[in-house]
Amino acid sequence: MARNFMCTKTDPVVETKAGKLRGFQLDGTYVFHGVKYADAKRFHQPTPVEPWEGIKNALAYGYVCPMLQQDQPSNELMVPHRYWPLDENCQYLNIWTQHLDPNAKKPVLVWLHGGGFAAGSSIEHIAYEGENMSKYGDVVVISLNHRLNILGYLDLSPFGEEYKNSGNAGNADMVAALQWIHENIANFGGDPENVTLFGQSGGGMKVWTLMQTPAADGLFHKGVVQSGCIDHFVSGNSTEQNGKAIVTALLAELKLDDVKALETIPYAQLAAAYNKVAPEVAKTGAYVGGNPLANDWYLGDPLEVGFTEHAKTIPVMVGTVLGEFSFMPALSEEEKADAALIDSMIEKRYGAEGKKLKEMFAKVYPDKDVSDVLFMDSIFRAPSTDFILKKAQHPESGTYSYMMTYTFPYDGGHIAWHCSEIPFVFHNTSLVAAYNEPGVTDLLEKQMCDAWLNFARDGKPSSEDLPEWPACTADDEATMIFDKKCEVRHNYDHELVALHKKLAPSPWSHNDDEEEQQIQH
Amino acid sequence: MARNFMCTKTDPVVETKAGKLRGFQLDGTYVFHGVKYADAKRFHQPTPVEPWEGIKNALAYGYVCPMLQQDQPSNELMVPHRYWPLDENCQYLNIWTQHLDPNAKKPVLVWLHGGGFAAGSSIEHIAYEGENMSKYGDVVVISLNHRLNILGYLDLSPFGEEYKNSGNAGNADMVAALQWIHENIANFGGDPENVTLFGQSGGGMKVWTLMQTPAADGLFHKGVVQSGCIDHFVSGNSTEQNGKAIVTALLAELKLDDVKALETIPYAQLAAAYNKVAPEVAKTGAYVGGNPLANDWYLGDPLEVGFTEHAKTIPVMVGTVLGEFSFMPALSEEEKADAALIDSMIEKRYGAEGKKLKEMFAKVYPDKDVSDVLFMDSIFRAPSTDFILKKAQHPESGTYSYMMTYTFPYDGGHIAWHCSEIPFVFHNTSLVAAYNEPGVTDLLEKQMCDAWLNFARDGKPSSEDLPEWPACTADDEATMIFDKKCEVRHNYDHELVALHKKLAPSPWSHNDDEEEQQIQH
Repeated sequence: MARNFMCTKTDPVVETKAGKLRGFQLDGTYVFHGVKYADAKRFHQPTPVEPWEGIKNALAYGYVCPMLQQDQPSNELMVPHRYWPLDENCQYLNIWTQHLDPNAKKPVLVWLHGGGFAAGSSIEHIAYEGENMSKYGDVVVISLNHRLNILGYLDLSPFGEEYKNSGNAGNADMVAALQWIHENIANFGGDPENVTLFGQSGGGMKVWTLMQTPAADGLFHKGVVQSGCIDHFVSGNSTEQNGKAIVTALLAELKLDDVKALETIPYAQLAAAYNKVAPEVAKTGAYVGGNPLANDWYLGDPLEVGFTEHAKTIPVMVGTVLGEFSFMPALSEEEKADAALIDSMIEKRYGAEGKKLKEMFAKVYPDKDVSDVLFMDSIFRAPSTDFILKKAQHPESGTYSYMMTYTFPYDGGHIAWHCSEIPFVFHNTSLVAAYNEPGVTDLLEKQMCDAWLNFARDGKPSSEDLPEWPACTADDEATMIFDKKCEVRHNYDHELVALHKKLAPSPWSHNDDEEEQQIQH
Repeated sequence: MARNFMCTKTDPVVETKAGKLRGFQLDGTYVFHGVKYADAKRFHQPTPVEPWEGIKNALAYGYVCPMLQQDQPSNELMVPHRYWPLDENCQYLNIWTQHLDPNAKKPVLVWLHGGGFAAGSSIEHIAYEGENMSKYGDVVVISLNHRLNILGYLDLSPFGEEYKNSGNAGNADMVAALQWIHENIANFGGDPENVTLFGQSGGGMKVWTLMQTPAADGLFHKGVVQSGCIDHFVSGNSTEQNGKAIVTALLAELKLDDVKALETIPYAQLAAAYNKVAPEVAKTGAYVGGNPLANDWYLGDPLEVGFTEHAKTIPVMVGTVLGEFSFMPALSEEEKADAALIDSMIEKRYGAEGKKLKEMFAKVYPDKDVSDVLFMDSIFRAPSTDFILKKAQHPESGTYSYMMTYTFPYDGGHIAWHCSEIPFVFHNTSLVAAYNEPGVTDLLEKQMCDAWLNFARDGKPSSEDLPEWPACTADDEATMIFDKKCEVRHNYDHELVALHKKLAPSPWSHNDDEEEQQIQH
C-alpha cells in the first residue's frame, strides 16, 4: 500500500544553529539524511559548520570516510550491507524523529557504527536504518559518520602543536556531533538532556572511549556497549605512546620531508604507504594509529585506568552474543548427530581439555546443541564481564548485562553471530531475510527493542515482556539472556568463559574462510 | 511480522551446467545473488565458468565493474541508490523466482541496468530489487553486472587479433549471461524460450544494441527500451572507427610500448590516464571508447543501419517519461502562480519561440501546469518516436509506445524524471519514499507492472486495468499515457517535441546544479 510521503519546497524544514534544513516525512516519521555537523582539515580538530542563508537539503546520506582497504561483499545473509561513496569530508549525521516540536523532548538515541575505528559507516548495515525504532519507540534516532583509520586516528603530535589531538580526530568528530545534537536536537523533537549512545563492536568501543573523554561529559547521559569490549583490540592505550615512529616511516616511504605534506597528498597514496610500512612498525611494538590514543583528552581504557568521575555516573548496558566471530560454515544435521565427529572437532579446536569445556558448555547451555561449543566466543565475553563488574563497583548508576544466545534459522541453525542482535535492537528484523522465524522473531524483537528503549528513557531496561532485570553489583553479574525464552542468570558462565579463553585459538582467522566461500571467483 | 525464511546447508540448491548453487527462500520467493555467469581476461571475450564440485553459495551480490569516476550521492529521494564493492571480475547475475521446477517454464525478464555503458550496476537502484515483481507476476526476474566503460568498451583491434571485439566486451558479457540463462534457467523455473530484455537509459540502449547483435539471436525474444533512445549518445557507431588514436594516446601517457601491458596495469592507473587523454582525442572526432563499436559482431544503430532480420521479429515496447533529465529544483506554488515570472523563465530558456512552445504544451497537456514546459524532454522522446515508427514498419512483430507523464508528490509536484518509472515497473514503489501517493500509486503501479508482465508473457502489454493498447503502425504512434488517468493517444506530441528539440538547450548540464544542492559541503 502506498505510504504517506511529504516533501515540499518548504516542508519539513527545521531551523538549526547554522541554518535551515529540509528533510522529508514518511508515514509520520520525519527523516533528515546527510546533515553536516562539522568540518575538518585532515588531522585537525573539527570546527562548526559555517552558517548559510536559505534552506539546505538533507535528503541524501553523506560521504563515508575512505578506508585502508576496499570493502569486499561477504556474509550478506548474515549481515546485509550498504556501501556508499567515500570522501574524507565525512562529518554527517542522519535523524529520524516523530516530532519537530521543541517541547516534545523525546529521548535521543545516537548510534555509533562498528568496523573497529577503521571501517564501516552510519548506513553500512541495512539494519542501521532508524525509521522503525523511532516510530515504534517514539524516540529520536541519530546515526553518524566520522573520520576513521589513519584519517581519524594517527598521532602527529610529535610534529607540531596543531596536531596535538590528531590521534583522536575521529573521536573528536563524534564529540562535535554530540555538541551539534546538544545545540540543535530540541528542534527535532529531542531532549538534549537525555541522550543515549549505543554502538556495536567498534561502535561499542566508541561508547566507552567517549565515557572516558571529559570533552563529552554532559553531552550524553547513558551508554550501551554491544559486543564492544574486546581483548587486545584498542592499541595506543598508553600515554607513553606516540606517532613518531609510524609518521617517520610514512614520510620516508613517501619521500617527503615535511609532515605538512601529509595533509594534502591524495588519500589513496597515503593509505598505500601506510599499508606498506605499518606492519614493520607494528613489529617493533610501536603505536601505528588506527585507534584512539590515550592522552589528556581521552583518558584511556577504564579496565586499565579506571572510570572517570563522569563515567561512574552513567548508566550502562553491556552485552555480547554467544557466537560473535564464529562465521565459519555451520554443521549439517548429520554432522551434529555424529558424536564422534563432534568430539574430534572439539579436540582439534580446543586440545585435551576440550572434553571438559564441552561438559561445562552442556551444563551452562542445556538447551543448545553441544556442537555449538565449537562456535562460542570468549574474546568479547570475558572483557565484557570484567567491564561490567568493574563498572558495577559504582552503584550510583545502573550497570546492566545481557547475552544473546538465540539460534538463527540460517544454515540449518546458527548461534548468534557478531552483529546479529542489531536488527532486533533497531526493530528491523523485517528488513533482514535471515532474521525471520515465524512465532519467534517478533516477540524477541519487541523484548530487545523495548529494553533498549526503556534504558534510553530512564536508564532501566526492564519491560513488560521480560522477567525483572536487576542491575549488576560488584559480585553479581545479573545477565539477561535473550533467546526464545528470556531469563536472568547470575554469574552463570564465568568458569566456562575462562576455560574457553584459555583453550580457544584466536577467532580473527575464521572470517577469511567464509569470505572465500561467499564470493565465487 | 516475521517472514518465512529458509536457507539450510542443502536447500534451496539448484544444479547448473557448471555445478550446484545455494540460494535462499523468503516468503516463497527463491533468491540467488551473485551467480558467476562467465569469466574474462581484461579486454578479452568472456569464457564459461569452470565447473566445480560441491555446492557454491549464491548469497551475496557480486562485484560491480569499477568506474572512471567515483560515484557521488545525489538526488537520493528521486533515485535512491545502492553502491557496492568494485572489481573488474564482475560477471555476476541475480535471480528471483517462485519455482525451481524445470517444468514451470515461467516467463524470464532480464534487467539491463542504466548508467550509460560506463557506470551503474544490477543493484545500483533500490528499485532494481526483483523480489516483488517475481512474486506479483509469477515470473523469473534476473539482473546482471557486466564490464563497463573502457573495461567493456575500448577497441584494441588495431593492435592484435585477440582484441578483435574488445570494443564490445561489455556487450559480449551480456551475451554470455544470456547464454548462461538459456542453458540454466529451466532449473530455476524459467522458460528459456521466453526471455524478455528490459532496461532503462543505458539499459535501454543495451536492449537495442543486443537486438543488433547476431550472437544474441534466439537467446531473447522481446525487448523493452525505457528511455533508451538518446540523441548523440552512442559513439563508435561507424565501422570506419577504431581505437588506434585513443589507445596510442593511452600508451604514450602511461609510457608503455606494448599494448599487452594495458591488460595488467592497475585499473586506477588506466582510468586516470584515460580520463587525462580522452578529451583531447575526442576533440579530433576520433572514437574514444566507452560505448559499443559497430563491427561485424554488433551491427550498429538501427536508425542508421536498419534493423537486423532477427530484430524485425522481436516485439518491442519503447517509451520515455515526460521530464527525463529535468533534475533542477521544482518551482514553488507561488512561482507557478506568477504568470509573468513563468513567461520570462520560458523566454529565457527557449527564446522568442518559447511562447509558441508554451501554447503547444498547454494544448497537448491540458491537465499539466504550464510551467512544466520548462521541464519537458525531447532528447529521449524524439529518437524514441523515430525508433518506434521505424520498427513499426515491420508489423510481423508488435511495437508498443508509452509515455509516463505522472506528476510526483515531491518538491511540491515534479513531473516524471529520468528513472522514475522503474519502481512502478518492478512493483517496488513501497521501497521508494518519494513514490508514494495514497489513492494513486497502487493503481498506477499495478497498471505499469501488469503491462510489462503481460508483454513478457505474450508480447502484448494490454491489461484489465488499462484501455485497449494497440501496436503502432508506420504512421500511427499509439502511445499509452501512464498517469492518474491512463489513455492511448495517437501521434499526440510530435509537433511539440520537434519544436522543443529545436529550442531547448542541452539537458546534460542541469544535473550539476541539483547535485551541488543535494550534498552539503
